[in-house]
Amino acid sequence: MRNILIIGAGKSASYLIKYFLDKSHTEKLHITVGDINLESAKKLVGNHENASAIELDVFNKESRQTAIKEASIVISMLPARFHIEVAKDCVSYGKNMVTASYISEEMQALDEAVKEKGLVFMNEIGVDPGIDHMSAMEVIDRIRDNGGKMILFESFTGGLVAPESDTNLWNYKFTWNPRNVVLAGQGGTAKFIQEGTYKYIPYNRLFRRTEFLNVEGYGKFEAYANRDSLKYRSVYGLDDVLTLYRGTIRRVGFSRAWQMFVILGMTDDSYIMENSADMSYRDFVNAFLPYSPTDSVELKMRHNLKIDQDDTLWEKLLELDLFNPNKKVGLKNATPAQILQKILMDSWTLAPDDKDMIVMYHKFGYEKDGEKYQIDSKMVILGEDQTYTAMAKTVGLPVAIAALKILNGAITTPGVQLPITKEVYRPILDELETFGIKFIEKKVPYFGYNHDSV
Amino acid sequence: MRNILIIGAGKSASYLIKYFLDKSHTEKLHITVGDINLESAKKLVGNHENASAIELDVFNKESRQTAIKEASIVISMLPARFHIEVAKDCVSYGKNMVTASYISEEMQALDEAVKEKGLVFMNEIGVDPGIDHMSAMEVIDRIRDNGGKMILFESFTGGLVAPESDTNLWNYKFTWNPRNVVLAGQGGTAKFIQEGTYKYIPYNRLFRRTEFLNVEGYGKFEAYANRDSLKYRSVYGLDDVLTLYRGTIRRVGFSRAWQMFVILGMTDDSYIMENSADMSYRDFVNAFLPYSPTDSVELKMRHNLKIDQDDTLWEKLLELDLFNPNKKVGLKNATPAQILQKILMDSWTLAPDDKDMIVMYHKFGYEKDGEKYQIDSKMVILGEDQTYTAMAKTVGLPVAIAALKILNGAITTPGVQLPITKEVYRPILDELETFGIKFIEKKVPYFGYNHDSV
Repeated sequence: MRNILIIGAGKSASYLIKYFLDKSHTEKLHITVGDINLESAKKLVGNHENASAIELDVFNKESRQTAIKEASIVISMLPARFHIEVAKDCVSYGKNMVTASYISEEMQALDEAVKEKGLVFMNEIGVDPGIDHMSAMEVIDRIRDNGGKMILFESFTGGLVAPESDTNLWNYKFTWNPRNVVLAGQGGTAKFIQEGTYKYIPYNRLFRRTEFLNVEGYGKFEAYANRDSLKYRSVYGLDDVLTLYRGTIRRVGFSRAWQMFVILGMTDDSYIMENSADMSYRDFVNAFLPYSPTDSVELKMRHNLKIDQDDTLWEKLLELDLFNPNKKVGLKNATPAQILQKILMDSWTLAPDDKDMIVMYHKFGYEKDGEKYQIDSKMVILGEDQTYTAMAKTVGLPVAIAALKILNGAITTPGVQLPITKEVYRPILDELETFGIKFIEKKVPYFGYNHDSV
Repeated sequence: MRNILIIGAGKSASYLIKYFLDKSHTEKLHITVGDINLESAKKLVGNHENASAIELDVFNKESRQTAIKEASIVISMLPARFHIEVAKDCVSYGKNMVTASYISEEMQALDEAVKEKGLVFMNEIGVDPGIDHMSAMEVIDRIRDNGGKMILFESFTGGLVAPESDTNLWNYKFTWNPRNVVLAGQGGTAKFIQEGTYKYIPYNRLFRRTEFLNVEGYGKFEAYANRDSLKYRSVYGLDDVLTLYRGTIRRVGFSRAWQMFVILGMTDDSYIMENSADMSYRDFVNAFLPYSPTDSVELKMRHNLKIDQDDTLWEKLLELDLFNPNKKVGLKNATPAQILQKILMDSWTLAPDDKDMIVMYHKFGYEKDGEKYQIDSKMVILGEDQTYTAMAKTVGLPVAIAALKILNGAITTPGVQLPITKEVYRPILDELETFGIKFIEKKVPYFGYNHDSV
């Protein structure tokens, strides 16, 4: 028996664990799931004969090291900032490791030690980052192998609510960390390249500079720019590309409405509001509007944001119960962003039978024999329920597949890495397809700009 | 003879030095002006028999301490961050000190040592901070002495171009540090209180939430909120006040036009633009607008900012030559804010015979015998030329008057302080009036809100 240690039994561990349990007999696996909350681990493990749940506090050195020592391979599903303790032990005890998180500087710093020991530390192998890397590199390598020269790469991902559960005016529910949604786009100007020109979008314009995306069978979406569109330029070998853009997908209309919160300052996380606990939702809104001895908060809001009487933006605000003078915020020393999150969670929390959806959309532009071409590649994954979500599927399955392939010696190149080489992505994409995770490709005319947006 | 040491012969030192030179015989003064640039010091001192210019590098400990040791009182007109070295020496050698700058934490930390030695360290005694403190406290104390209860205090200051030199469409020229103008309002949400309610304005709305101010003989102005309206709440004894607001004055229309730069992201100082040196002014603008293979930068700008064909905003942009494809930025590794500053300096630099203007406007609301009252108090100071500016006058004269009064034993309360006590402000305001620095008061109906803005 090979012992697979999974640390962290959170939201994205369900499919991951199921994958191993289903293969435990044929692959001779024992699965140990460790979590600070033993019940969470037990719930996902069930009574399976080849699995055990243990209480594991990653900051308890002894229990952590004992568990890692006994493992054949270690998968960390902890929040990204906690990986490093696990990673150092994996180096010490000579264990391979897999995470779905971005490679941190601390993790990168282990590269030499990892190589010296001949270990594989595979990271960024969930979804965004993960499936986006693999599916993009698969097409980019194919274009190049056929003699094409890459000139454009755009990549969009969104975690959304499935159409059948899409029941509010925002066409959005929290399928992942709500805080990240409220803070999205903050912390720096979005930078990208379009047809050879660097473009910059400040936070206050980010949600008004969206572009539309059509996904057959699912209708129209929109996307706003990520801050870090140029992050993988060199990693993907796209230094000479004319257009490079990464974005986040929402349903059409979300961003224009979200802009209201941005403009008013409700997404700000940098200061604490006075008397936040006793404030009503209406007081919260009023704090961002001018004083008037006579006019209503509603009229001040409409006037300040120039919302016409018949603009559907207004219904989106009403749906959130934003003007309620009786609902209290009830959070002490809260920032505007924390209060907004609380208000949104009233309306955007998934109901028990709601399902989620992951949408991914790549555009590849290339030149061959003097002609320009474009391939659009799209993926939609629907969740099954609130345990087996689309998010858990797209994060957990590539992690699981990669871990087993490393364990079986099919992936061997040592070092701290991400899945951008054929050796890694080819077999993983193939196996993902057997789980319904696949991209539909379509040849379209090359534009190099967003021809829908004028 | 008493020896007055003035460190720093910059823009605001002219009136200060002239004040002492004019009184040097009657008051038996010798004035030593030290600057890192000896020529600057010489220029302001001239051939006056009771004055000398010396080269003084504030970071050269020996020359600094020699000069301070020989002084009867020390005035630091250096940039605020350099005061502390001088201050420490003043404590060591038992010298009184005067600055026009905000009291830094480091300066405040010297309070105990300063008191122990019985010294007076007077700060914030220029203009904003300075004349604003004194003129406000004079009225506030008067209201209280007459049995009134303060309920509103609003205070506005602006450094502008004098009407006779007001020759561009923005009604603005740089009369002080251009960088501060470009970065104005950044670094945090503006917070104030209006009729008992805390209000917050994020940077992206700051220049659209202005209010109007009328100054008899000078017409209409506008003001946007300072970040720190509550800064002097306790210092002024206004903890229970219903409305507290501080703002910056511009000519009407400036802020609405400035908002274009804010919205586009041109005032951002947090990142470096690619190829900034080779960029034309037009390229700079285009970097903040969407890509289009056909449309002009002009049309994209109009469309993006919703500027109507007949909106005078447009002429303001043309006046800055913002769309010129031939003018190069010419700054290496520059931030958007640095590039914008460069572009604005082409148009907004004072001509040799241009004059500046300082405008200050206070509103005092109070309650007495169950009735509410309001006093508006206004000051306008015009510069004489580019040496004897309104800025130099309003910064330098209160500093000079305070220094002489300390030297003559008329101001004696020891410690690190600002001019908010009667002992200090009363005689200084009286003497400032002999130089034409005076406020016009007017009783107006109490509103408690900006009744012009709806």
